[in-house]
Amino acid sequence: MSATIDLAIIPGDGIGPEVIAEAVKVLKRATEDEDVRLILTEYRLGAAHWLETGETLPDETLAALRRHDAILFGAVGAAPGDTRVPSGLIEREMLLKLRFALDHFVNLRPSRLFPGVPSPLAAPGEVDFVVVREGTEGPYVGNGGALRVGTVHEIATEVSVNTAHGVERVVRDAFARAAARPRRKLTLVHKHNVLVHAGHLWRRTVEAVAAEFPGVEHDYMHVDAATIHLVTDPSRFDVIVTDNLFGDILTDLAGAVTGGIGLAASGNLNMDRTAPSMFEPVHGSAPDIAGQQKADPTAAILSAALLLEHVGLPAAARRIEAAVEADLASRAELTDARATAEIGDAIALGVS
Amino acid sequence: MSATIDLAIIPGDGIGPEVIAEAVKVLKRATEDEDVRLILTEYRLGAAHWLETGETLPDETLAALRRHDAILFGAVGAAPGDTRVPSGLIEREMLLKLRFALDHFVNLRPSRLFPGVPSPLAAPGEVDFVVVREGTEGPYVGNGGALRVGTVHEIATEVSVNTAHGVERVVRDAFARAAARPRRKLTLVHKHNVLVHAGHLWRRTVEAVAAEFPGVEHDYMHVDAATIHLVTDPSRFDVIVTDNLFGDILTDLAGAVTGGIGLAASGNLNMDRTAPSMFEPVHGSAPDIAGQQKADPTAAILSAALLLEHVGLPAAARRIEAAVEADLASRAELTDARATAEIGDAIALGVS
Ligand SMILES: CC(C)[C@H](C(=O)O)[C@@H](O)C(=O)O
Ligand SMILES: CC(C)[C@H](C(=O)O)[C@@H](O)C(=O)O
Repeated sequence: MSATIDLAIIPGDGIGPEVIAEAVKVLKRATEDEDVRLILTEYRLGAAHWLETGETLPDETLAALRRHDAILFGAVGAAPGDTRVPSGLIEREMLLKLRFALDHFVNLRPSRLFPGVPSPLAAPGEVDFVVVREGTEGPYVGNGGALRVGTVHEIATEVSVNTAHGVERVVRDAFARAAARPRRKLTLVHKHNVLVHAGHLWRRTVEAVAAEFPGVEHDYMHVDAATIHLVTDPSRFDVIVTDNLFGDILTDLAGAVTGGIGLAASGNLNMDRTAPSMFEPVHGSAPDIAGQQKADPTAAILSAALLLEHVGLPAAARRIEAAVEADLASRAELTDARATAEIGDAIALGVS
Repeated sequence: MSATIDLAIIPGDGIGPEVIAEAVKVLKRATEDEDVRLILTEYRLGAAHWLETGETLPDETLAALRRHDAILFGAVGAAPGDTRVPSGLIEREMLLKLRFALDHFVNLRPSRLFPGVPSPLAAPGEVDFVVVREGTEGPYVGNGGALRVGTVHEIATEVSVNTAHGVERVVRDAFARAAARPRRKLTLVHKHNVLVHAGHLWRRTVEAVAAEFPGVEHDYMHVDAATIHLVTDPSRFDVIVTDNLFGDILTDLAGAVTGGIGLAASGNLNMDRTAPSMFEPVHGSAPDIAGQQKADPTAAILSAALLLEHVGLPAAARRIEAAVEADLASRAELTDARATAEIGDAIALGVS
């Protein structure tokens, strides 16, 4: 059997191109023995591209992206001091637009403390959970507005929109993931005592879907309490399902607890496969260290592994993960900092 | 000079009465040498009271509460398994109703890692910051609703409402607090790249008010990044100003980082003094350990110190804080767990 995998690559801004180069290196290495033909098409998008062209995500580019099997994404965003780029413009008009247009309703963010990786926690224990963050609704929908801007009577609103359709599909996905894991435990995180309407929709949906998964245990935690548990007993979590904003917050915290967002991978998944899914490190473009070979490409490489898993190459994905694990375990003995490409080389070499 | 301080005491549910008893013990001790007459009036409110009477916060009770100089509050909320109490009802109809009705626009939550207190972080450093959480707006306003509930077409919304009036007064308060602290640093936490309208109101307001406080340095951090910094370098923070929901999340995390919410105090402040302010531990009613003298009254006692500061007795507040600090420093040597009342006794005895 010989398969073709047709990927779109969006390196983006800042450290994006550097970490994506390593992810591509490892992708190639992991697929060469699998008799898979990789087709890679690079797209220039992001803040630098916007400064040159005024384009965020043209319709034709979006249409072209739709034709690929999957998208590998680096990071976007200008330097914070660069006042030429309106703040948040690229994030909203390009990154979030892709997530919404391609219906990435499952934003999957695994959190695992790999052996040998230092955690800021004194006694982290065994940490291995996944956050299933809803990706197409909640406070991210861009609903809201402002009146009498700049006056003492200004009022600004933000509307979180939650639908039965949107909540049910992500909750079902989270239960299915929990059912396939050894501990089979799902935790809904919300703030239903204050956000009553959205909270009740989420809770009712979890109760209803739970009936389809009798083997999965489930509980509930308020988002504020969840941040406490993430630093006092992160090993209690198996699968967390939560909304777009709470998921954003919890996964950065989870990334920090498991050794830093330089290691945190994510997949923006369209589980109905009506459009390509997109894989990206949780970290941003880090303009302060861009172009210096200082970035850790591990998160991008692990995102590439999630990509391979999603396109039907789980064995190749496992081989990347094993190589990353071996590299991480060896880091404690290193005395000098390695360049981005050196880390990529070491991991590529480790792919057996 | 002899002053009278007329306090309302709301012990509430669960461990509330136990921790409030100790806070009152320490309050009395700290004021007896100050020639201050304490008048204490207890109000029965909370889940147990609702089960008996069906009342959450009757108009007459609210009117009576308004006549006091300040309110000391324990905790409210039924056991999670108690299905007789609709979830979130007491929190919204009583606790949040008080915060809104009494215009508690500054929800002040100091976070300090006291000497001798263990942190879940391996290397916390010196942690001493305050979170100034907005208390009367944001996603807590109860705006929003649901359509077609229980059907596949259900849609539930939550609206965050932010006004120039509401944002400006809390931002000004936060700058004033920063100006009075040695480091004079303020950090605005929001998510303006996604929550554009509210985010821009907050940012513009911080820029405008900053002009009035040239001695205060200020920066900005997204809420997701703030959770990372809270576990990797919490000592970077001095004053954080943020909205109601982000403040809720960050202060639980900050409490965990500084030794647990059993130590975290808060004040719901009406800084215009048009109504009494309310002081409460950040922790909840902890029904699982209620009535067993297992709760740590320290957060309630430190909340009482914030109360004394607010009603014009800073020296008495300092004496309580010093007694708490001494007690915390001595804990490492203790071999047996102390009862709630024993901790209260030790701290009261330490008030010089
Ligand atoms: C860049 C930003 C819009 C994005 C988000 O909030 O989702 C990022 O923080 C993330 O978590 O992927
Ligand atoms: C009980 C709840 C409504 C409350 C809040 O969300 O403000 C609590 O979590 C707090 O932080 O005081």
